[in-house]
Amino acid sequence: MPKPELLETFTNPYVDREYEIHMDCNEFTSLCPLGGIETDAKELDALQGGAPDFGIIRITYVPAQVCVELKSLKLYLWSFRNDGIFYERAVNRILDDLVAAVSPRWMRVVGDFNLRGGIKSVITTTHGAKG
Amino acid sequence: MPKPELLETFTNPYVDREYEIHMDCNEFTSLCPLGGIETDAKELDALQGGAPDFGIIRITYVPAQVCVELKSLKLYLWSFRNDGIFYERAVNRILDDLVAAVSPRWMRVVGDFNLRGGIKSVITTTHGAKG
Amino acid sequence: MPKPELLETFTNPYVDREYEIHMDCNEFTSLCPLGGIETDAKELDALQGGAPDFGIIRITYVPAQVCVELKSLKLYLWSFRNDGIFYERAVNRILDDLVAAVSPRWMRVVGDFNLRGGIKSVITTTHGAKG
Amino acid sequence: MPKPELLETFTNPYVDREYEIHMDCNEFTSLCPLGGIETDAKELDALQGGAPDFGIIRITYVPAQVCVELKSLKLYLWSFRNDGIFYERAVNRILDDLVAAVSPRWMRVVGDFNLRGGIKSVITTTHGAKG
Amino acid sequence: MPKPELLETFTNPYVDREYEIHMDCNEFTSLCPLGGIETDAKELDALQGGAPDFGIIRITYVPAQVCVELKSLKLYLWSFRNDGIFYERAVNRILDDLVAAVSPRWMRVVGDFNLRGGIKSVITTTHGAKG
Amino acid sequence: MPKPELLETFTNPYVDREYEIHMDCNEFTSLCPLGGIETDAKELDALQGGAPDFGIIRITYVPAQVCVELKSLKLYLWSFRNDGIFYERAVNRILDDLVAAVSPRWMRVVGDFNLRGGIKSVITTTHGAKG
Amino acid sequence: MPKPELLETFTNPYVDREYEIHMDCNEFTSLCPLGGIETDAKELDALQGGAPDFGIIRITYVPAQVCVELKSLKLYLWSFRNDGIFYERAVNRILDDLVAAVSPRWMRVVGDFNLRGGIKSVITTTHGAKG
Amino acid sequence: MPKPELLETFTNPYVDREYEIHMDCNEFTSLCPLGGIETDAKELDALQGGAPDFGIIRITYVPAQVCVELKSLKLYLWSFRNDGIFYERAVNRILDDLVAAVSPRWMRVVGDFNLRGGIKSVITTTHGAKG
Amino acid sequence: MPKPELLETFTNPYVDREYEIHMDCNEFTSLCPLGGIETDAKELDALQGGAPDFGIIRITYVPAQVCVELKSLKLYLWSFRNDGIFYERAVNRILDDLVAAVSPRWMRVVGDFNLRGGIKSVITTTHGAKG
Amino acid sequence: MPKPELLETFTNPYVDREYEIHMDCNEFTSLCPLGGIETDAKELDALQGGAPDFGIIRITYVPAQVCVELKSLKLYLWSFRNDGIFYERAVNRILDDLVAAVSPRWMRVVGDFNLRGGIKSVITTTHGAKG
Repeated sequence: MPKPELLETFTNPYVDREYEIHMDCNEFTSLCPLGGIETDAKELDALQGGAPDFGIIRITYVPAQVCVELKSLKLYLWSFRNDGIFYERAVNRILDDLVAAVSPRWMRVVGDFNLRGGIKSVITTTHGAKG
Repeated sequence: MPKPELLETFTNPYVDREYEIHMDCNEFTSLCPLGGIETDAKELDALQGGAPDFGIIRITYVPAQVCVELKSLKLYLWSFRNDGIFYERAVNRILDDLVAAVSPRWMRVVGDFNLRGGIKSVITTTHGAKG
Repeated sequence: MPKPELLETFTNPYVDREYEIHMDCNEFTSLCPLGGIETDAKELDALQGGAPDFGIIRITYVPAQVCVELKSLKLYLWSFRNDGIFYERAVNRILDDLVAAVSPRWMRVVGDFNLRGGIKSVITTTHGAKG
Repeated sequence: MPKPELLETFTNPYVDREYEIHMDCNEFTSLCPLGGIETDAKELDALQGGAPDFGIIRITYVPAQVCVELKSLKLYLWSFRNDGIFYERAVNRILDDLVAAVSPRWMRVVGDFNLRGGIKSVITTTHGAKG
Repeated sequence: MPKPELLETFTNPYVDREYEIHMDCNEFTSLCPLGGIETDAKELDALQGGAPDFGIIRITYVPAQVCVELKSLKLYLWSFRNDGIFYERAVNRILDDLVAAVSPRWMRVVGDFNLRGGIKSVITTTHGAKG
Repeated sequence: MPKPELLETFTNPYVDREYEIHMDCNEFTSLCPLGGIETDAKELDALQGGAPDFGIIRITYVPAQVCVELKSLKLYLWSFRNDGIFYERAVNRILDDLVAAVSPRWMRVVGDFNLRGGIKSVITTTHGAKG
Repeated sequence: MPKPELLETFTNPYVDREYEIHMDCNEFTSLCPLGGIETDAKELDALQGGAPDFGIIRITYVPAQVCVELKSLKLYLWSFRNDGIFYERAVNRILDDLVAAVSPRWMRVVGDFNLRGGIKSVITTTHGAKG
Repeated sequence: MPKPELLETFTNPYVDREYEIHMDCNEFTSLCPLGGIETDAKELDALQGGAPDFGIIRITYVPAQVCVELKSLKLYLWSFRNDGIFYERAVNRILDDLVAAVSPRWMRVVGDFNLRGGIKSVITTTHGAKG
Repeated sequence: MPKPELLETFTNPYVDREYEIHMDCNEFTSLCPLGGIETDAKELDALQGGAPDFGIIRITYVPAQVCVELKSLKLYLWSFRNDGIFYERAVNRILDDLVAAVSPRWMRVVGDFNLRGGIKSVITTTHGAKG
Repeated sequence: MPKPELLETFTNPYVDREYEIHMDCNEFTSLCPLGGIETDAKELDALQGGAPDFGIIRITYVPAQVCVELKSLKLYLWSFRNDGIFYERAVNRILDDLVAAVSPRWMRVVGDFNLRGGIKSVITTTHGAKG
């Protein structure tokens, strides 16, 4: 299960200035709840769970009072490793968890997933309006 | 014949949020009804149909009530494999079929076709207005 | 001499929708009327004409009633092969000929020419206003 | 069915010199006889055949008496489009057919296939010894 | 635990010819038994196991009687997902398991792992002599 | 300690024109005050300070009366080499010091830091409004 | 000394249309009046002048009555070869000289200079407003 | 007609040393005598000759008494512009003409031709043995 | 001072097999004892030491009884951070220290240093003979 | 005039080991004695000398007793800036001057020159035998 309680924050050192923080998290992996576009029954049986998905999670935000602490973000993203979750749900869930943790002025989360069945998927979701 | 009946959908898990889904389908192939820019009569005879076209179909949309299911999208695009269809018609046809299937808030389909006769073609068509 | 009479068209299959067609024509070549930046008298004598120019012609347009047929476009561009013409004139001439042939809602022609004398030239010209 | 009878040759214009001809055929596609790494029963049913494979066929040879004619090579490779064949068999079959057609001094065929299930395959097979 | 019993083979269709099969498996992931170069105690506690490693496994071999079946190879590599194993051991273990399964004339396995602590590691191990 | 007193300026030679100066400083390095995402206690002990961070500092500004002198900028950035400072603080501090030194019409500082724990960070901060 | 008198023009062949001409001049070199960021006294003594600077001059303009002739532009840029001039002054000087020569509707000059002391500089200056 | 009489030479300034000269001639164009893989009768009629071929000619040699003069090489390659000639013949012809002109210790000519009908061709031919 | 005592090893898990370990250490930095190619007296004074050098250290070896532990290698390379050392000495010193620590069957160290004064340096040094 | 007297050396710190030093000097420029492939009489008149040539000089050597000092190498290469010299002569001259200065066990000099008249030239010359 994704564990938002792993997310930690620190006080924004320049709280009076609107500036932007971007992070590319290159090693996101989760499982697909239904096996996914490339998985059949035999494969699911072998793994006792869904087929692995891989992707990059790109997070951009304008901090308000706090910033997300990098090591805790890494641990939070690791907590998706053995859970079955659809792309659309994962990306929006990460946005929800991060917004709850850091209450940013604006935030965007992009899930840039690896090719499956000759198809590459990119999901983009946003909280608030920029500028 | 393109088979829009292959397209399946699932309920948008974050129906209240405007977010974007992008898919690059790298292995689109169809036939050209007239043989195409590089085909002469002998070639058509050999193949008993038009010359093959290859390209990438890039789909971007903002889902409303439902999202298109990835595996069904792959099958739908496979259904163009042995039909003769012009670039312009194929790209607009894919837009029409997907709009009918998922009624998106906004959708764009781009057909990015391989070099033919030293010419690369890219067709871009859109449904609705973004934002 | 450029031969606009080679250009053929076909009926736009989605005439009610504003969509965009882009073509990169990678093998454009013509001659320079004055020999060009890298040519001296001896070279001109050897060739009995101007020095060759090479470039990519990038055409983007929003079709109205008709689209330009790809093979005829290739032949039209081939007809510049042995004529002397300046970059600026060639690019605007192609725009004029294509606008006359297909009466587009909007069209842009870019001539992206090879390095000459350590200088790369790109000419961009447009007909009508987009959107 | 692959149609080696489509292959045509022309007399090697420099038969006394050992030189090398290389061709990258970028648009090879065939079907997988068992559906392949990404295909399940439902997909096969939809397509009434195996799942499509895509790849580049890279051919290198030292001609002896004849060379393979390019347009006929293109038609020959098109003839795999709707047949089910494994990677290993396809690449060795192409080598056998070309060796039969042109009796080269040496020939290598490489099948460089697209990613399937996160795995990219490249098969290399050779006839004769170089030099 | 790595599960070599998942590996399946099929009869080499061209057993009389020495040819080469190469596979890049882009989505290999395992855990590091000691937490690895970037992990401290708190992280291990959060994950209840070692820190994730990511990499590409590149396999090249000359088949003898049998070839490894692609889908089974994918499942075999998935079986490392939740086990703690060092780079050096993983790469040599994969070589041992594949050699046992397909008895190749020659085989090489390369583990090309992601940056850790500013250091990228590539391990190369070989069975038999080529040619 | 960062030494803003190292920054030197020279009179803007085209003070009446609004133009833009961009500098990519590719060799920025500092230390992380807490050891950073990849550092544990043993590492800190070895170095008697925080773990090294590396990145590119990208500075863009529209000069007013003075421009920053390049060699002095290099020395100023070197002065971060052995100080512990968080990414967010470093980037905003550089902006503050440069704004104090050159009073630009507009300035942006981007810190484009190397991968740490599989995560790449980019911080962007701005002074004034452009145009 | 830069020699603007070398610049020649020709009549804009499509004077009624607003179109854009872009030129990348890849082989610009000048000297730095003070020796520059990487030069010390001994080096200056050896060269009897400033240290060499290298860069790309990127010119974009919308012509009015005349266009700049390419070969004369090359000669004009060569005339900076042995003069000492700062980046900011060189880029604005080129803009001034070209504006004087061709009176464009709009013009932008970018000086994209090579790495010096680990720092890459790009200067952008503009005459008039576009569109 | 290719005009080998255009080739000029100059005395090798370091005749006692075995060193290598390589030249990439990026703008080679000729015509195909039969129209080529992408040409039909109508196209030929339009051009009153074969379809254009484009490619890069890569020449490498170890000079003996003389070197080929660069400007004359350019003119010689221009002389193929309006002649119909097959790839294999063109590349071997260039080798023959250059060997006749400069009597090198060793020479290799590579014709690296543009994609035609989805196929890229590279022809390599050599005179003498290296080292 | 470089601290070879930081280097730790672990028992080679496949001691009977000759295999290769390669590591790219992307964040090496040291100081130049004389200030280096880009430093003058004023700069040295500002830094109270030599100018910083940056580079990638590429290590390849065939282990015998032990392998170098990655985290300890990182700490060892960090220990060059504030010492003045020439490129040639640093690369050979790293080879000596690693050979002393792991007694490899073969080892190569490459120092791939950043551009200084328009010059990029790469130093390659080897211990023992491969294979 | 090239000034080999500018070259300075320092004692090879690891004289007993055969190791390799490689340097890419990215900013070499000289003049062409005859004006070069792209220059006509008017251009020569404007410059009062030959047309500028640009290229990269790549030097690789195995040092014996001494190494070439980097800053002195930079100054030596600057001394070609205003002299007219052919490519072949320049590259062999640099080899001769460096061999005289450092008496290496082996040395190679490559001159990798910019495109002129659509032709890129690379000259490679070597002193001694490697290994």
